[in-house]
Amino acid sequence: MIASWIDGLAADSVAVKDRGLAYGDGLFETVLVKAGQPVLFPRHLQRLTLGAQRLALNVDLALVEQECRRFAAHLGEGVMKLIVTRGDGVRGYAPASDALPRRILQGGPLPAYPESHAEQGIKLFACQTRLAEQPLLAGLKHLNRLEQVLARGEWQNAEYAEGLMRDVSGRIVEAVYSNLFMVKAGVLLTPHLRRCGVAGVMRAEILALAEHENMPARELDLQMSDLQKADEVFVCNSVYGIWPVRGVEHLNWPVGPLTRKLQHLVRGLLDI
Amino acid sequence: MIASWIDGLAADSVAVKDRGLAYGDGLFETVLVKAGQPVLFPRHLQRLTLGAQRLALNVDLALVEQECRRFAAHLGEGVMKLIVTRGDGVRGYAPASDALPRRILQGGPLPAYPESHAEQGIKLFACQTRLAEQPLLAGLKHLNRLEQVLARGEWQNAEYAEGLMRDVSGRIVEAVYSNLFMVKAGVLLTPHLRRCGVAGVMRAEILALAEHENMPARELDLQMSDLQKADEVFVCNSVYGIWPVRGVEHLNWPVGPLTRKLQHLVRGLLDI
Repeated sequence: MIASWIDGLAADSVAVKDRGLAYGDGLFETVLVKAGQPVLFPRHLQRLTLGAQRLALNVDLALVEQECRRFAAHLGEGVMKLIVTRGDGVRGYAPASDALPRRILQGGPLPAYPESHAEQGIKLFACQTRLAEQPLLAGLKHLNRLEQVLARGEWQNAEYAEGLMRDVSGRIVEAVYSNLFMVKAGVLLTPHLRRCGVAGVMRAEILALAEHENMPARELDLQMSDLQKADEVFVCNSVYGIWPVRGVEHLNWPVGPLTRKLQHLVRGLLDI
Repeated sequence: MIASWIDGLAADSVAVKDRGLAYGDGLFETVLVKAGQPVLFPRHLQRLTLGAQRLALNVDLALVEQECRRFAAHLGEGVMKLIVTRGDGVRGYAPASDALPRRILQGGPLPAYPESHAEQGIKLFACQTRLAEQPLLAGLKHLNRLEQVLARGEWQNAEYAEGLMRDVSGRIVEAVYSNLFMVKAGVLLTPHLRRCGVAGVMRAEILALAEHENMPARELDLQMSDLQKADEVFVCNSVYGIWPVRGVEHLNWPVGPLTRKLQHLVRGLLDI
């Protein structure tokens, strides 16, 4: 297994001046790699492209794609983490006019999640840490992730595989490292992410699958009261696919038929 | 001039696994150094201590202090930037149980600000980037600074030495790398920082000076309408001290007597 590349070369340390370290001035993607191929890679690149536009990060996306494919081929199977930062900084928030974005790739093994997460479903911890509303950064997978760090720090009990995150107004947004869906009367519902949250690659894939399968699906504002009335709940990300949610706080759900159907479809995408 | 130390040793690169890079999981301080001494250092340490508590960052503060003093002695004169991160990460937001916080010190020269900034005052650019409200992180000088990066990217015109930042509700909070004060009918007013903003070392020093000098001072919610009615406005930070604000958008202020008085007192603190 290879450890890490920086700007295309094997390296395991980064310049102390990097603006990714100084300000979290950058983006990342966590990509499943199977049979030497990055999985759902066009969607990862699409989100990265959008993020680079929003942050005015002048990164060579063709080069990023090429490097990722080379790295994935070396990795074979596992998880590839791509970080793109604005490169070295001078003092202050204004970027140097000649700053070159830096590309960082790290490889790791496939995570060893218990099979039961996907089969019997998981319990969510109800995090007290709320997501701040920042439309300028909403949807992006940027490097400013202290809210997730604080939220993940709220529980140690392994009974909870994920944590439910709400925004400062109490709306349901996502889980700490997943997106969240619910099913109500046959309709797939997921929080829209205009104010905060990460627009996950698997979330986008599931919305596309739903359209393809003629399942009605909506992105909207969702409250705890909606969760209470849900028939099915699940979380998803691009590494593990879909985990049914069995419960959060006093609420409980069965593993429902739409969840199983989507899980089956998603497995087909991930088990290449 | 010395470049940088990591954990007490000369080094200019940091492990690619560092959680400061991955998540902005850490804190920083930018400290003026004069005659080999870190200036206003107890206040910097105080803010770092508070930040470490809020982020549950188990850093050895006595060691940080000792290293900073050694580094400042080597630097002589300039600006010392201290970054404390949660150290190396494994995959995911949960910190490794054995993670050791990392201490990073970087030295640079004194910034060459035009003398006119302090004498005639500056103009503020009115940033459109709004600060999200996140009480859990408010006041801290943490490494999640994309809002400042976006705000600073809004203007290139050197006519503006700083930018005014409001929160998502339109309240005045601070400047991009400074805090903001106004004077109204002899009372010193500054935005309180319960929802967002960085509680600057110089801001704390000015509030303490005001108390010592029996100047009435208040921390409160401030709107653009308050700015409109202000008699004097100034910005401050621990490196340049105080800059009077001449104007923002259509608003203009003279350089007032309270600003000059505080500027004089603050100069005494910085020119050691």
